[in-house]
Amino acid sequence: MCDIAPILLAGTWKAANSSETFSTQNPITQEALPGNYPISTWADCDAALTASASAADELANIAPTQIPKFLRRFADLMEENRNSLGHLASLESGLPSEHRLAGREMDRTTDQIRQTAAAAEERSWKQILIETKRDLRSMFAPIGPVAIFSPNNFPFSWNSISGGDFASAIAAGNPVIAIANSAASGTTKALAELAFQASQEAELPSATVQLLYRMNHEDGKRLVADPRIGATAFTGSTTAGLALKASADAAGKPIYVSLSSVNPMVFLPGAIREHGDQLVNRYSNVCLKGTGQFCTQPGLAILIDDEATKGFIAATKDKFNGVTPGTLGSKKTLANLIEKIAVLKKAGAKVITDQEQKQGSGFSHPNTLLEVSGAQFLASPKALQTEAFGNTAMFVVCKDVAEAKMVIDALHGQLAGCIYSSTDGTDANAYEELAPRLRRKVGRFMNDKMPNGMPVSIGMAHGGPFPATGHPGFTSVGIPNAMRRFAMLQAYDQVRQSHLPEELRDHNPTGKLWRNIDGQWTTGDIAEVK
Amino acid sequence: MCDIAPILLAGTWKAANSSETFSTQNPITQEALPGNYPISTWADCDAALTASASAADELANIAPTQIPKFLRRFADLMEENRNSLGHLASLESGLPSEHRLAGREMDRTTDQIRQTAAAAEERSWKQILIETKRDLRSMFAPIGPVAIFSPNNFPFSWNSISGGDFASAIAAGNPVIAIANSAASGTTKALAELAFQASQEAELPSATVQLLYRMNHEDGKRLVADPRIGATAFTGSTTAGLALKASADAAGKPIYVSLSSVNPMVFLPGAIREHGDQLVNRYSNVCLKGTGQFCTQPGLAILIDDEATKGFIAATKDKFNGVTPGTLGSKKTLANLIEKIAVLKKAGAKVITDQEQKQGSGFSHPNTLLEVSGAQFLASPKALQTEAFGNTAMFVVCKDVAEAKMVIDALHGQLAGCIYSSTDGTDANAYEELAPRLRRKVGRFMNDKMPNGMPVSIGMAHGGPFPATGHPGFTSVGIPNAMRRFAMLQAYDQVRQSHLPEELRDHNPTGKLWRNIDGQWTTGDIAEVK
Repeated sequence: MCDIAPILLAGTWKAANSSETFSTQNPITQEALPGNYPISTWADCDAALTASASAADELANIAPTQIPKFLRRFADLMEENRNSLGHLASLESGLPSEHRLAGREMDRTTDQIRQTAAAAEERSWKQILIETKRDLRSMFAPIGPVAIFSPNNFPFSWNSISGGDFASAIAAGNPVIAIANSAASGTTKALAELAFQASQEAELPSATVQLLYRMNHEDGKRLVADPRIGATAFTGSTTAGLALKASADAAGKPIYVSLSSVNPMVFLPGAIREHGDQLVNRYSNVCLKGTGQFCTQPGLAILIDDEATKGFIAATKDKFNGVTPGTLGSKKTLANLIEKIAVLKKAGAKVITDQEQKQGSGFSHPNTLLEVSGAQFLASPKALQTEAFGNTAMFVVCKDVAEAKMVIDALHGQLAGCIYSSTDGTDANAYEELAPRLRRKVGRFMNDKMPNGMPVSIGMAHGGPFPATGHPGFTSVGIPNAMRRFAMLQAYDQVRQSHLPEELRDHNPTGKLWRNIDGQWTTGDIAEVK
Repeated sequence: MCDIAPILLAGTWKAANSSETFSTQNPITQEALPGNYPISTWADCDAALTASASAADELANIAPTQIPKFLRRFADLMEENRNSLGHLASLESGLPSEHRLAGREMDRTTDQIRQTAAAAEERSWKQILIETKRDLRSMFAPIGPVAIFSPNNFPFSWNSISGGDFASAIAAGNPVIAIANSAASGTTKALAELAFQASQEAELPSATVQLLYRMNHEDGKRLVADPRIGATAFTGSTTAGLALKASADAAGKPIYVSLSSVNPMVFLPGAIREHGDQLVNRYSNVCLKGTGQFCTQPGLAILIDDEATKGFIAATKDKFNGVTPGTLGSKKTLANLIEKIAVLKKAGAKVITDQEQKQGSGFSHPNTLLEVSGAQFLASPKALQTEAFGNTAMFVVCKDVAEAKMVIDALHGQLAGCIYSSTDGTDANAYEELAPRLRRKVGRFMNDKMPNGMPVSIGMAHGGPFPATGHPGFTSVGIPNAMRRFAMLQAYDQVRQSHLPEELRDHNPTGKLWRNIDGQWTTGDIAEVK
């Protein structure tokens, strides 16, 4: 027990106040990785909250350049340590380092961080509104300390210390209390070391970034409801997310949860006839890539029964059977997948893939394609849209468009959804029937494309009605929109000019800041507008 | 029981499915008013939800002119019936008709409705964002059927059938299920008749506006959590609001509650020295006007103990003693006020006004000013910021600025807050110490003005951290911002041009619609921007 990893508390790496520890496991070799991580007691949570509240005060008074400086330096440091971070994350996640982790995912992560830096610098995310006649001015401002609980499927880009929630919360001016995903504790610690170094170089308050590895469930619930907390972001299991949400909700503390989504795809017969082979390849690839561990993995596909559809199902089944199953991120992920497939089967779904496939490495499970009729789905809609997170998908084969419509109406909220339709007009009526209904169930609606490989960019929205998220008015991806989650709306009613934040004064502080003045968007000063 | 008022369900005024009824009471004469109103069973709620869900579907396909037409026609009809509505609302609320109800409040209400009509027509509230490079487009869109529970202190401007929540929800494209405030049932029914007439003239779906008078608590909780509901708005008592919030939260349904706020005012000594008499008058007036029944009534004032302050307290006490107490809106309001003053007294607050004042009419209570020291407040901060809704206020007299700072830190979230400081610079240091701390506790921050008489206009924000509201990122006043509560964020990812809503197509549909294209706000077409 001599090498228990330190937590990062109020600007110091120090021993946790803990009675228990845990270690991480290589999901491929199933061997324990070096390092013990502490399960913090409430004393650590309490100290982190107090330090974070002070940091929030201090952050209100720093120069507007400091946060962008921190974020950019952090991105640079991550890239400088690209290979060692990739190696570490690969050991903990089982994901390949070179192309995925140290490659694409690192690039995506640092790009997102730099986008938040630019947004923090530019400040238009504050949505400044000035009504000159009554001298009423409003903008979004920091909400206070943000607690972040993250998943383990993206060791960098969704990490509680380098992912979108982290960067958005910081760029909006808030300190962060990061709680590591247990399976990614070593990676998270390594990232926190770099973040802390960058925060010191940018002369940010010492508790701007803090790290705890884990706490018991009761302390987690207490943390998100604490008066010192501003808001919480959680991405992970429905059970844990709902427990935290209930606690935060009861205390009136905003919490953004991302829980469960099967991301329905509709493949209309004309589209299958037009380019069925391509669809089989693409769909199989996005279902199985990264062992299907994406929150946008399209785990439910709605089909209309006809000859073309039958061929599509058979070919997809062959693809699933032919690809060696990948490794899942942890023992827990594997256990969850097995459990959720059982739920689907119990509700009437039939496994159509061969379960005697080539064996994957470590925590792996055969690629699994299930099938259910539209009528069966409608008999148990809740159970049959259970998210089986991993290399699994389910076809809902409807007898006609009318039945597909009912299936869509029975869906709960989803992150993304798509309709593939032909270009020759043969699917036009079906599209018209189905699109408005699917549209309102999903945050992101697509035509003729797969939901994975979601670009991190200004126009993206990654949200949707419950249980995809807890509030359909927000997004966790897409800068600056994602920053709005960690902000409160502040109005200034006849406040003296010298008492106003510079963004709200008559003079535009940068000459480039977009402000809505009396209903017109402008980068000008108030005098010029009048 | 032969004249039980009908409910408005799916486009028909019909007998409720109820087993119980209630009547309203004139708060001045304390006599029962004519009319019996039904307490609906779940069957009515269920029918309203089904009809509302269909209306939401239909509203997605109407012409963009229909909702503005409805809102304007409704406003016109209200004004045409100004006097009869004012008379009815006066009987139910005890508020004067001529100047208040049929006068200022009617004007404020119809002005707000016309603002939402203009916003619905203009469509910039959708916050359109287009990223051309990746063909990603997003905007806010209707969230679905909205349930509205309203208070009785503003019979028109916060009515569930004519207030800001109603107009915002409709203007954002959603049908409304209005639940009357029981004390204002007759007024609400009369307004619903006009709203229904206007909705028919505008050819809106028949269930766009529905009205229930009351339901039992269990059915209320079930209603706000129903899968068919989009969101709920609630303004009223903390107990009822929290019960509904817990139910909606557990189902992942957005609910906007406005619960409790004492709207702290800080009167710094220099300001009192500069214009103490004016402050005494203004403060007493806003505390007692409308019998103090405003959610922005400044029921807690923070003072720094010195000679000027002592004079301010004595003069305010005299004012409170000298004004005849007004009538409270209902027996329940009076009972609540008595109960809450008792809570304040039990926690150490001393009543400094004379309780043998001139007697008010009907449900009235002596004007009550309480006083407590900063140290006492800090010993029981929770109890001592209990909202005693009505003609009551409390002074927290702090020994110095440092203590005032701690008092402010001990406040929970508030709708509004203000600091009065001198113009000669003597209060400058105190202002600097206190302002940043008060700023983050309140939705609307003011200098040198009282919070009442809040203008309904574009720059206003009426929100704040819990328990003022349930989420500090929203406002219930200020068009178009208030409409965002009833919207979901919808992204379109590479959706074919012909499948896009017209607001998101390359061509700007009106030539006046503000859209953010690749980070620039413009009313132009996309081709022009590129």
